Amino acid sequence: MLPLKVIQNRIANAFGSEQFLNEPVKLYEPIIYTLGQSGKRLRPVLVLLSCDLFGGDIEKAVLPAMGLEIFHNFTLLHDDIMDDAPLRRGKATVHKKWNENTAILSGDTMFVLAYEYVAKTAPELLPEVLRLFNDTARKVCEGQQYDMDFESQTNVTINDYRMMIQLKTAVLIACSLKLGAIIAQADPVEAEKIYDFGMELGLAFQLQDDYLDAFGNPSVFGKAVGGDILANKKTFLFLKAFEVASPDALSHLNNFFNNPNIEASEKIGGVIRLYQKMNVDRYTRQEIDHHFQKASGILDGLNAAEENKREIRNLALGMVGRNR
Amino acid sequence: MLPLKVIQNRIANAFGSEQFLNEPVKLYEPIIYTLGQSGKRLRPVLVLLSCDLFGGDIEKAVLPAMGLEIFHNFTLLHDDIMDDAPLRRGKATVHKKWNENTAILSGDTMFVLAYEYVAKTAPELLPEVLRLFNDTARKVCEGQQYDMDFESQTNVTINDYRMMIQLKTAVLIACSLKLGAIIAQADPVEAEKIYDFGMELGLAFQLQDDYLDAFGNPSVFGKAVGGDILANKKTFLFLKAFEVASPDALSHLNNFFNNPNIEASEKIGGVIRLYQKMNVDRYTRQEIDHHFQKASGILDGLNAAEENKREIRNLALGMVGRNR
Repeated sequence: MLPLKVIQNRIANAFGSEQFLNEPVKLYEPIIYTLGQSGKRLRPVLVLLSCDLFGGDIEKAVLPAMGLEIFHNFTLLHDDIMDDAPLRRGKATVHKKWNENTAILSGDTMFVLAYEYVAKTAPELLPEVLRLFNDTARKVCEGQQYDMDFESQTNVTINDYRMMIQLKTAVLIACSLKLGAIIAQADPVEAEKIYDFGMELGLAFQLQDDYLDAFGNPSVFGKAVGGDILANKKTFLFLKAFEVASPDALSHLNNFFNNPNIEASEKIGGVIRLYQKMNVDRYTRQEIDHHFQKASGILDGLNAAEENKREIRNLALGMVGRNR
Repeated sequence: MLPLKVIQNRIANAFGSEQFLNEPVKLYEPIIYTLGQSGKRLRPVLVLLSCDLFGGDIEKAVLPAMGLEIFHNFTLLHDDIMDDAPLRRGKATVHKKWNENTAILSGDTMFVLAYEYVAKTAPELLPEVLRLFNDTARKVCEGQQYDMDFESQTNVTINDYRMMIQLKTAVLIACSLKLGAIIAQADPVEAEKIYDFGMELGLAFQLQDDYLDAFGNPSVFGKAVGGDILANKKTFLFLKAFEVASPDALSHLNNFFNNPNIEASEKIGGVIRLYQKMNVDRYTRQEIDHHFQKASGILDGLNAAEENKREIRNLALGMVGRNR
């Protein structure tokens, strides 16, 4: 089993040594800008970890793994236009730094690039790999649509929310792990299991992201607390709070979320205090643990030596904030 | 050789019998709206014609051919956002009828759909088919970027323009024909020839489109004359006019294109009269004929019975307005 560090370095080197610049320069510069803001490269790391877990040659997985990272960055680029987000990973978003047309078209080109890299796999595996990727890409688009729909919908339930983050976030985590399994030519039953593991892990991961927006340490989390609260985003925390609120708490919640005269920091602070009072932080941790336990159970049942699962298990713990 | 009419009907039926509606409805409604505005379905028709020319079974080409039509419509959808176009085929564009976010995301989803359909081919052909489609999709994006770059560039040459329309328009015509050849398992040399034929035909086709903007009959052409002129678009006509203009004509051209006080119909009429005086219509027809003759020559050299080439030849004549 290769150590996580080795796999992370392999992915970093792969991106570092790839030449994305091409003509016309105005099309490719925003792509290089986007791919240069490395982030955690979580998805390609998962591809390689899974490939290694099933005894595959990670070198055969490097290029398709890059395809998933390029795809993920393409979705962020287009999502940032739709959300009119000014910043991504602390830097100006493409549509702010350039303009919307550039962001649309460079995004489209990144989507093609993603397919080019995903396709760099053995021909006999291509039909299955492409089926997986097409299915994933479609679901991620559907998830983003639900996310936008929910903004103006007043009757969103926690089940709706779970379905949305499954599509928007979890399927790509699951796809990453399954892609590694396919490239390692793992038993299809095992490949399906690691996909299911990825779905549960992906849910836990997104819920952790929701949790950190209210209860994270900004210096560790890397972004300011309360963005979701300010935007009235219907996260698990928001939906849970409205579900469990007493009539009195409900009127406070409604006031914080709907009174335009309340100042930003007051709103964030007030909502977080209400969340704590209603144990929303505890409910969220329970929900994270629930999905993480389901993920762990599936990983336990995988037909592989326990020591080979260690690196994935550690990474998964990190994804839900339990490795510190 | 199947008659063109049969092939057109086959494509129309294929789209008519396909179920594109899915959840979430807001994502798929604009896709159905876009694909329902049938247009000529030129690209899938070319796929089937080429497949038939090389003795292939057109039924094996129907679904991948639909993929190219879906891709083409995806590019129009995103291009319409970038050009802020209000109408497409006489109906409101998606970003006007719904909004920009919907147009971006439904477009992205159509791009996935295009890949899904293109991938519905025999597994042993998939690597080559996907390579062709990826290459084409990337070039179409590059062509659109050049088109946008040229808007603010003052030194665009006719060569630049030709390169741009090659990428933006001609490669997809060429790809359509080559896709049919691949599915028919034609000799690779012949498949390359029909690709080259498609490139020349695609250039002639785009030049014909430029020509019709100034010299078309609106009731036949289906859109009002002069849209390119009003938008100061650097078409072949525009570039040729500036190339051949006398100092006197140049000042008139500059006035028409840069004086904001000139009324729309006056501008269109004035520019068309200037074009005629400078023989820009004749130069354009010569350029169309040049590329059409090159295309014809390549078709002549194809290793197939002359009578089997008849339908493609007729369609090609129609594409440059010579079948009336």
